[in-house]
Order: sequence, then C-alpha cells, then structure tokens
Amino acid sequence: MRFTSEQRLDDGVLEREFTLGEIPGTLWTPESAGPVPLILMAHNNGLPKGADRLVARARHGAAYGYAVATIDAAGCGDRPLSPADEQARADLRRAMRAGEPVDEILESLVGSLVERAVPEWRITLDALLTLPEVGGPVGYSGWTAVGIRLAAVEPRIAAAGFFAGGYVPHAQREEARQITIPLLFLLQWDDEGNPRQRALDLFDAFGSKAKTLHANVGGHTGTPWFEVEDGNRFFARHLT
Amino acid sequence: MRFTSEQRLDDGVLEREFTLGEIPGTLWTPESAGPVPLILMAHNNGLPKGADRLVARARHGAAYGYAVATIDAAGCGDRPLSPADEQARADLRRAMRAGEPVDEILESLVGSLVERAVPEWRITLDALLTLPEVGGPVGYSGWTAVGIRLAAVEPRIAAAGFFAGGYVPHAQREEARQITIPLLFLLQWDDEGNPRQRALDLFDAFGSKAKTLHANVGGHTGTPWFEVEDGNRFFARHLT
Repeated sequence: MRFTSEQRLDDGVLEREFTLGEIPGTLWTPESAGPVPLILMAHNNGLPKGADRLVARARHGAAYGYAVATIDAAGCGDRPLSPADEQARADLRRAMRAGEPVDEILESLVGSLVERAVPEWRITLDALLTLPEVGGPVGYSGWTAVGIRLAAVEPRIAAAGFFAGGYVPHAQREEARQITIPLLFLLQWDDEGNPRQRALDLFDAFGSKAKTLHANVGGHTGTPWFEVEDGNRFFARHLT
Repeated sequence: MRFTSEQRLDDGVLEREFTLGEIPGTLWTPESAGPVPLILMAHNNGLPKGADRLVARARHGAAYGYAVATIDAAGCGDRPLSPADEQARADLRRAMRAGEPVDEILESLVGSLVERAVPEWRITLDALLTLPEVGGPVGYSGWTAVGIRLAAVEPRIAAAGFFAGGYVPHAQREEARQITIPLLFLLQWDDEGNPRQRALDLFDAFGSKAKTLHANVGGHTGTPWFEVEDGNRFFARHLT
C-alpha cells in the first residue's frame, strides 16, 4: 500500500489517496490518535470514489471517529473497462433505450463485478489493518451485492449497512440467508431502477437477528442526510 | 387540568399525574426552565398509561428536552368500559379463540375508540398548552389510528411518529392520504397480529413528502430501544 497524496481537511480529517497494486483507494482517518474502527465504504460501479456525495459521507464518518476507506474496484469508477465490461455496458444501454428487460444483462454484468471486487476488497482490508491508526472491528457500508459476498466470505466484517439501490445477482440473493451479522438496510421507497418488492424480499431473506430497515420517500439519489448520521450511530452500536 | 401528584425522578424529570374532567393523564417535563416542545404520546387501548415501557419512553423523551404527555382515553387503559366496549372485546376474544377473522370486530372496536379518543386528546392539548413550561411545536407519538385522525383534524400537530402495531380502521387508512406532516413510521417486521403488507401499504399511502420507515426484526413487543432515541432525533429535526 503506497500513499500518493495527503491532505488535512478543515474538520481535522486526514485524507490520503493510496494505490495497492492496480487498486486506487482513499483513506480518511480522524484527528484522534490510536487505532479506530474501520468502515469499508463500497460504492457501486456507476460512481467513481471521488464523487462528492461519497466523499461527504466518508468525511462525516471519519469526523465521527472511524477510519473510512474506499476503492475503485475492477471495472468500477475510473478503472479501465475490460472488453467484456464494455460489451455488457453497451448491451445495457441498448436494452434500456429499447425499453427491453435488463435483468439478464445486469445478472451477468454485476455478477462479474462482484466476483472481481470482493478479492480486491479483501486485499485492501489486509493492507489497511497493518496501519497502526486503523484498528477493528470492521464495518461495511454501501453497495449491497458486493457487501453480501464480502460478509459471507470475510469473518472480519462485524456489521454492515447496505444501500439497496442496485441490482443484486441471484447468487447474492441466495447468500443473504447466510448473513448473520447486524445489518442496517437502507432503501429509497421510489427508486426508479430498483423494484421495491425485490428490495423488501432481500431484507426479509437475511439471516441476521439484528436487522433494521430504513426507507425514505424519494428516488435513487434522494437519501436524506440524516441517514448518514443514523449509519454512524448504527456502527457505534456494533463496532465500538 | 388538576395535578394530583408530583414526583421529581432521578434523571431530573418532573412526573405529574393530572385529571381533566374524566380524563386521567401524566405529564413529564425536563429539568430545564422555559417552554419546551410537546409530544403527545398515545398508547393503544391494550396498555394503561402507567405501563413500564411507556413510562420509560416518556421519561427518555423528557430527559432529552421535551414535555411528554399521555392520557388514558375513553375505553383505554384503566378507564371504565362501556357495555358496547365490553361486548366488542368479548366478541374479539371469542373470535380469536375460534380462529375466526377479526377485521370486522376490530373495525368497529377501534373505530369507536378513535372517535372518542381524538376529542379527548384535543381537550388535553388545549390544557397542556396553557402551562408556561409547555411550548410548541407539538409532536405526536404512538398509536397510529388515533394519530392519523388527530393529525388530519388538528393543525397544531407538526410531526408524528407512528407505531404500526395495531389495527387501523378503513376511515383512517383513507385519511392517511391527507396527512402531509413529516412522519416516522415504525414497524415490527414479524408482528404477529399485524399483517406486514397492510402496514407497508399504509406507509405508502401517507401524503407526506418527508416520511421515513423504520422496521426491525421481531414480534410486536420487540422494538429495540434505539428506536426511542431515533424518535427523539426525528422530533429534534422537526420540532426544534
């Protein structure tokens, strides 16, 4: 893990860009010394890790007392696309323009992204936990499909906040039953691209005894800011 | 409004029993001087106003900085039952024992309770707002059916937290569309006596632009304590 830039922000948070092999990432840590719990903040493929609303969430988490890390996983954000990724995205655009069903294309596209993202997140987690300022336990926040697989294979994930705003492949819908860590499941009630019933069924499927659903009126990008604060408090209950 | 007892609790909260005509009530106020926002905490007919978990919620709200008031409305808690109430409850018990549908009985029983409770809550609100230590704005917390009617007819209610744990008569399901104040709608995902889909449909029906659903795994009485804290923060966003 090599830090490539470092910036002290006005809320005292230290923001550092890093690379880990081909993986570009950002780590935000609070002013406080000493190891703090870590939150892996995964965004879906549609947004680069530098997107304003992701950075705002990460900074808020760090100001609250967590180390927050994000990466652009393979095929996501500003990472180069494979020919297969390019083809799948072209197929998706074409099907959406034509008003055709997109589930099969998404199954293949997102399934492939999950397969590649999860190992990268695990390598990143290994590297982050070697830093003296990063402790545990470890939480996960964001992209549901990657989070389900990561929580299923990675015992170091102690709690997770999922944003139910993207397609979840069949394999991860099945894996949801194996997930038993505390969950906060966040849903936009009128999310244009995500059928509400499918999200509610997924919430129902998780095996966790402590699982909470938060739903707010509005479309995909309309999540109110107080949900970021609720997320921090959720992690406070389970990581501290 | 006549105060009949007064007790300073160890968290500094002042707990006072009162009567207002035939209506018995309790008011909890914080240590701080000066008028504070008011929360009307309505419980459904199955619990008296002195039930431990209601008192714990009320005290927490008062310690947080609100005046919190509750009453036993007509036919609720320790109030005497009318012959019609007695008959409806007997019919309900019989139908439940026999495994028969109870919706018609609940429609009549709860509908009648709502009709009688709402005027009593409005009289209580008038009286509470004459106290120098009670200011505004006013929030409502608890029993959904009464809260919908109260919010529909009472412009002084500025925000409401509903617990979706009881039967909501047809008239209130219709009135839900008229409700436009900010809402927090709390649901137990596995509530034995309350069909989940019916509660989700009700959440969907409200006209409010700011409405949030919180659902937790577990049965009717399993709401986690952190929802009380989330409720206080919800009211902080809208009443202060």
